[in-house]
Amino acid sequence: MNNKVIIFDTTLRDGEQSPGASLNVYEKIEIARQMEKLRVDVIEAGFPVSSPAQFEAVQRISGEINAVIAGLARTKEIDIKSAYDALREAKRFRIHTFLCTSDIHILGKFADERYGKSLEEKRRTILKMACDSVAYAKTFTDDVEFSAEDAGRTDIGYLSEVIEAAIEAGATTVNIPDTTGYNFPKEFGAKIAELRKRVKNIDKAVISVHCHDDLGLAVANSLSGVENGARQVECTLNGIGERAGNASLEEVVMALKVRKDICDYYTDINTEEIFNTSRMVSSFTGMIVQPNKAIVGENAFAHESGIHQDGVLKNRQTYEIMTPASVGVNKTKIILGRHSGRHGLKSRLHELGYKFTEEELPAIYDKFLELADKKKEVFDDDLRVLMGDQILAAKNERYSLEYLHVMVGTNSIPTATVKIKVGEDCVQESATGDGSVDACFNAIERALNIKSNLESYNVRSVTSGRQAMGEVIVRIRSNEKSFTGRRISTDVIEASAKAFIQALNQQQAYLELIENDEVLKDSLSDVSAV
Amino acid sequence: MNNKVIIFDTTLRDGEQSPGASLNVYEKIEIARQMEKLRVDVIEAGFPVSSPAQFEAVQRISGEINAVIAGLARTKEIDIKSAYDALREAKRFRIHTFLCTSDIHILGKFADERYGKSLEEKRRTILKMACDSVAYAKTFTDDVEFSAEDAGRTDIGYLSEVIEAAIEAGATTVNIPDTTGYNFPKEFGAKIAELRKRVKNIDKAVISVHCHDDLGLAVANSLSGVENGARQVECTLNGIGERAGNASLEEVVMALKVRKDICDYYTDINTEEIFNTSRMVSSFTGMIVQPNKAIVGENAFAHESGIHQDGVLKNRQTYEIMTPASVGVNKTKIILGRHSGRHGLKSRLHELGYKFTEEELPAIYDKFLELADKKKEVFDDDLRVLMGDQILAAKNERYSLEYLHVMVGTNSIPTATVKIKVGEDCVQESATGDGSVDACFNAIERALNIKSNLESYNVRSVTSGRQAMGEVIVRIRSNEKSFTGRRISTDVIEASAKAFIQALNQQQAYLELIENDEVLKDSLSDVSAV
Repeated sequence: MNNKVIIFDTTLRDGEQSPGASLNVYEKIEIARQMEKLRVDVIEAGFPVSSPAQFEAVQRISGEINAVIAGLARTKEIDIKSAYDALREAKRFRIHTFLCTSDIHILGKFADERYGKSLEEKRRTILKMACDSVAYAKTFTDDVEFSAEDAGRTDIGYLSEVIEAAIEAGATTVNIPDTTGYNFPKEFGAKIAELRKRVKNIDKAVISVHCHDDLGLAVANSLSGVENGARQVECTLNGIGERAGNASLEEVVMALKVRKDICDYYTDINTEEIFNTSRMVSSFTGMIVQPNKAIVGENAFAHESGIHQDGVLKNRQTYEIMTPASVGVNKTKIILGRHSGRHGLKSRLHELGYKFTEEELPAIYDKFLELADKKKEVFDDDLRVLMGDQILAAKNERYSLEYLHVMVGTNSIPTATVKIKVGEDCVQESATGDGSVDACFNAIERALNIKSNLESYNVRSVTSGRQAMGEVIVRIRSNEKSFTGRRISTDVIEASAKAFIQALNQQQAYLELIENDEVLKDSLSDVSAV
Repeated sequence: MNNKVIIFDTTLRDGEQSPGASLNVYEKIEIARQMEKLRVDVIEAGFPVSSPAQFEAVQRISGEINAVIAGLARTKEIDIKSAYDALREAKRFRIHTFLCTSDIHILGKFADERYGKSLEEKRRTILKMACDSVAYAKTFTDDVEFSAEDAGRTDIGYLSEVIEAAIEAGATTVNIPDTTGYNFPKEFGAKIAELRKRVKNIDKAVISVHCHDDLGLAVANSLSGVENGARQVECTLNGIGERAGNASLEEVVMALKVRKDICDYYTDINTEEIFNTSRMVSSFTGMIVQPNKAIVGENAFAHESGIHQDGVLKNRQTYEIMTPASVGVNKTKIILGRHSGRHGLKSRLHELGYKFTEEELPAIYDKFLELADKKKEVFDDDLRVLMGDQILAAKNERYSLEYLHVMVGTNSIPTATVKIKVGEDCVQESATGDGSVDACFNAIERALNIKSNLESYNVRSVTSGRQAMGEVIVRIRSNEKSFTGRRISTDVIEASAKAFIQALNQQQAYLELIENDEVLKDSLSDVSAV
């Protein structure tokens, strides 16, 4: 068997399913471009049938990215057709269809009336649905992946049957997800080994693993899968995804690279792009990476204790099993400034993974100059922030902040005044609050005559130096759906006001979308994942 | 062999070594109390010789906590004596001494002049140092642990020799750390199994594992260690620690609990206290837990996709392998308010793990009323914040903020005015800045005539509702050491100013300490860890 492990990145699908992580189409394209630089083999770009926005993102990514683009689909014809319609422009694409196979899922989710009364009958129905959907997907493309949802808790006998039938029907990749993050590494590896024994036609497909991290074992399970015959790993940047998330791409890839001596497999990943990609995903999704996260956390290569520092100074290998440079953490930072010029800016942005047209450059350059006036030293992170803001600004916005004034202090009541542009009109209001940010939000709500439900509010300094830029992430919730606003500024109050308005814009756009789409309204209650 | 796995928590030692995570003595005591509620078997409280603050914390914890208290010590007599002096008041205590055993550490850290020219000679010296230190520790207590630093990369033959000799010298626990997070689970498990074969007297000691997470495998490695004979796991809350951190306590414990069917061991941990403890550690250390962190992350039990939500509504087990309640995530939140009264507050605080005297209650109650006026609904998280602030306030502070006024807005230059009390005097100043926070910091620095190096700045909403309280964490750096200030307020600007002043207070206290302690100055360049 070949020793190459295919890296199937599902940051844009399973990762984006993380509560609060929703990405707009521009952000998705930008991430997909960076994944291409990272040399991911397959990019799962979304779940086309689930919403017009998902469809559009998959379609746009298919139009410009060279990796294999995958789209998710339930075993329904409408899903598979929609995936094909979104993917058809891609040079190479894959339809990924899935269905659950564990007793607990089968009994919990499938009604007697439609799928049969006994477990046995239901199992037969499901097997047929799996085969039919693979065969239908096959009419659109040779590259079809089938996932047996909750395979981690599926009886090995039935799982083998389903997998064999799916391959027979034309599946070229068979995915074994540990959907609930339940398996131990030895157990999961044994499952893969057993499938290779039992499934007669297993050599006609690539075995894939898709592990969740509910017990902190997703990476170990994925590696155990590989050691037992899997040749595709499904993973996400920073390990984001449903609940505790998926196996983290950077950990799986670096474990294989660092321990080639005992685990002789390889990936095509350009590991030096890991850090850039991680930062981009964290910044766009608003999903913070904890400082002690392996490989990409702020402290992953920091040595605090005296003994460790001392050891590292004498010989880096005493406490480092890989170099920061191997994952693209560049200690010798490149710093731009006012005098770096248009060309310097452009080439650095390209190195960081951003793409833009010559027409877009002047606007970016202007923002850069504005920033360079405030911050003498412009670091890579500043540029990431600037580009993130640029992407956000590309969206049409219903509301925009025209004027803001805030006063706050000891023994004075925090007061904010705002003027907001709504289409052609302007509205202005003032309000007090328990703090400066609260006063701002109150004034904005009063001006727009909206009452919102603030779910979370976060600020972090995303860049270094005295004039660090702060990124504010505001999440509001309405109708069981979250809307995120994100703004960057050297002033936290201004950024907060703008982020809040952006979240309101997102909410507004969504409500208008729903209003105009009856089909969508129906299907929204019933979609999603592995 | 007994199937109980001893949980050795090193949050206060290895965890506190995380860059920026330093805890003051009050915070350490509070965490230790919570660990007692969590029913941790052994609490490693610190590294007494490394600083007077560490010594004091270990001593104070020894005086009040019933778990076994461990103190770390290099193989030097001064370390072991210092550990004993700090621990002697404890009902039960353990001296934990360590020395490296891997070739790469031996050759990288030990000078020819003192330890011998060849690897062979150095190895002999180290073996003797290990035995001597264990024997010396044994003169103070029966409970002695020996750690073979970087055992993960140590030759099994030499490792067996050292472990056998350490047990012979009196070690009752022998710890096998994968210091650099290098091992794969199968490999690490095989190492433990091999030790049990080769080390003749292995039955006279408990085998312990201490795994780091550099490749994301710390939890899997710890479990593999247990399956192969280890009966102690060293871990930290939220997996904090050097670099990518340690095995996370909550993941190890819940994996053993959830998968008892295939891995028949148990711990004495009261899992329902996991969430409380995690929150407390995160809040006190300022180490953020990422939303997709297993067990304790904000999203760990959140189901976002339609299919998942639907499945969970039909049968929780379809997507949940453990209940949120089993780890203390309480969905039916208890909400206090103005009318909850002194008794209601007191009993809720006790349930959340806080201890305080009757004398302290009135001050806490006053703060609670102040908060309840602003926020009609006071959640558990609000109380955690309030108690955190209370603990911080217990410290004597050199500088304190008397007055603050900030003005910020579109087209106006952010301006801040502050008055700060310094001992008996007051200083006042104003300054502008690139933003409201920057203006504040500038005014504070100007008033105190200090120039500081801002390392990071974070804000997060720690409580829910419209009047959410924001927690600001400011980290400044000087002389290769970080100082953290943390403040909570419904106003982000005020919290920022106070947090900044607190960080300056910490820095000042440290500088005064160093000034007065010549011995400490010498030893600081040369201390720390497994």
